[in-house]
Amino acid sequence: MTTMLKAQYSERGPVPQAVIEAVPFERPTLTQGQALVAVLAAPINPSDVLMLTGQYGMLPPLPAVGGSEGVGRVIELGPDTQGPAVGQTVLLPAGSGTWASHLVAPAARLLPLPNDADPKQLAMLTVNPPTASLLLSDFVQLQPGDWVIQNGANSGVGSYVVQLARLRGLKTVNIVRREAAVAGVQAQGGDVVLVDGDDLAARVQTATGGAAIKLGIDAVGGKATMRLAGTLAESATIVNYGALGGEPCTVSPRELVFRDVTLKGFWLARWFRVTPQPQQLALLTELANLIAAGKLSTPIQASYEVAQIKQAIAAAAGERQGKILIVPAQD
Amino acid sequence: MTTMLKAQYSERGPVPQAVIEAVPFERPTLTQGQALVAVLAAPINPSDVLMLTGQYGMLPPLPAVGGSEGVGRVIELGPDTQGPAVGQTVLLPAGSGTWASHLVAPAARLLPLPNDADPKQLAMLTVNPPTASLLLSDFVQLQPGDWVIQNGANSGVGSYVVQLARLRGLKTVNIVRREAAVAGVQAQGGDVVLVDGDDLAARVQTATGGAAIKLGIDAVGGKATMRLAGTLAESATIVNYGALGGEPCTVSPRELVFRDVTLKGFWLARWFRVTPQPQQLALLTELANLIAAGKLSTPIQASYEVAQIKQAIAAAAGERQGKILIVPAQD
Repeated sequence: MTTMLKAQYSERGPVPQAVIEAVPFERPTLTQGQALVAVLAAPINPSDVLMLTGQYGMLPPLPAVGGSEGVGRVIELGPDTQGPAVGQTVLLPAGSGTWASHLVAPAARLLPLPNDADPKQLAMLTVNPPTASLLLSDFVQLQPGDWVIQNGANSGVGSYVVQLARLRGLKTVNIVRREAAVAGVQAQGGDVVLVDGDDLAARVQTATGGAAIKLGIDAVGGKATMRLAGTLAESATIVNYGALGGEPCTVSPRELVFRDVTLKGFWLARWFRVTPQPQQLALLTELANLIAAGKLSTPIQASYEVAQIKQAIAAAAGERQGKILIVPAQD
Repeated sequence: MTTMLKAQYSERGPVPQAVIEAVPFERPTLTQGQALVAVLAAPINPSDVLMLTGQYGMLPPLPAVGGSEGVGRVIELGPDTQGPAVGQTVLLPAGSGTWASHLVAPAARLLPLPNDADPKQLAMLTVNPPTASLLLSDFVQLQPGDWVIQNGANSGVGSYVVQLARLRGLKTVNIVRREAAVAGVQAQGGDVVLVDGDDLAARVQTATGGAAIKLGIDAVGGKATMRLAGTLAESATIVNYGALGGEPCTVSPRELVFRDVTLKGFWLARWFRVTPQPQQLALLTELANLIAAGKLSTPIQASYEVAQIKQAIAAAAGERQGKILIVPAQD
């Protein structure tokens, strides 16, 4: 019989790989309405790591299993339980503690996904693609041909922004922090890719032929927010969704007051909280279909088993060109 | 015959009183449509000083006469000219170069004001009261009983925010940077007055009984913006209209992303540019009536003649409890 493993933490601390460890558990007995799912793949997202360090906006009670999204295959249904059939690939409910070989979930909350699509790409469906999609749609009314600018363009969300923008006929200016990241973003289809710096606004003007950019997407914070603001058209909006630079967002009153720039934030967890279920499902289904069709994907750096959780977390914090995934050993 | 004087600058520089000087000019000959106005009073606003140093968002061509608002008395109308009668107190058109003993203005742009009201208070009608009024009305829908928080509460705009909020049934939390400024804001009717500091959010909670504050008004920038954000309810809006601290606004992604706080800017010059004339006149008339009725006023620190312009500018930059005005010697 398979050993079941979960990556669990009982306290939070500044070194995330120090607080989490793989622990074995017994095959659970299911009650009505439950399903036992073998996890196929689950990514390590920056927000997952912030939950280990205690810096996230919403923290699960302890002890907790790490990981907040992933896909699995149903291996057992509880007594008298309706739900996806045994063998069906399913999306795990958001926030379910997915860094595990197996988990128990309410069968009704498992969204069936195509069995023949790449489970590693599907595993990243819940967090980054909806974030990218909503960043592009919910703040500024954009028309095909319009330009959008983002920093942190080589991040997970960044790569989906590039691809979704392209699918919607939008053009992207992509800002990265290192020259080494340029080629990867170009390969994903970024129209313009530039390394951040003080003369950014002038270089963006040149590269876009003076386009009026109405939406800036900020993953970095600090002075990078201000540099992004400087590239935007009057009355444009910046939406921040992360702080890769570790510093608070900085915007000069010159941009806010004289150029009417607005700074907002986006948090997917809030969107899930306030948005009706059918609308959530519609977006996830649309994005799952794009992933299954190979139209939406993100580079993967490496995969680790649950037993290697400490290594995996350390790798997620290091220099990388793609996502780190937990891929449990399958029977 | 009276010597006519204007405070003029021909270049911009970091020391504003060094670039401006009082120069005499000859009584102008009027053409049709013009009025000659004797200036009764004109304030020195921070934005006026930023025009001398070149740090403002809109700079008049040089040479220019300083000052952007004030009141005067019509002393002559051009040939065949319709307009307020000779002797009528009038509001000078915004941006007309008001630090002068006399100026020529289009008669049609002179708004008649009550002759019996205090011209010094009326002289400050165009800039600060509309700013305060629009900060309170144009960003967040507020109901009587709601709380508003502002920093820089002892500034010119800040004092009008306190008074207008009170007239509209709103309650104010007022943040100042020095203990010495507390009493003045209390005297104007501020409900709560606190000195800025790191534990601001907790002190605001205590002072307001845990009120959900939906609007923050930021005149300071820098980390003061972030401290203000920390005092606000979820999904609240901060409107910045100045940078008294000289630093760009800083807001943490925690506030933007997890608490859905929005940061915007307000610039009265833009409002005048995009708002239909009748709506502008309606607001100015409403505010003029409040000033004439003594319901709206701001402390005045000192008055200077046009010949004392360098002293006046220096005084405006120094420690003070009220506005500095230019009040030309009257015949």
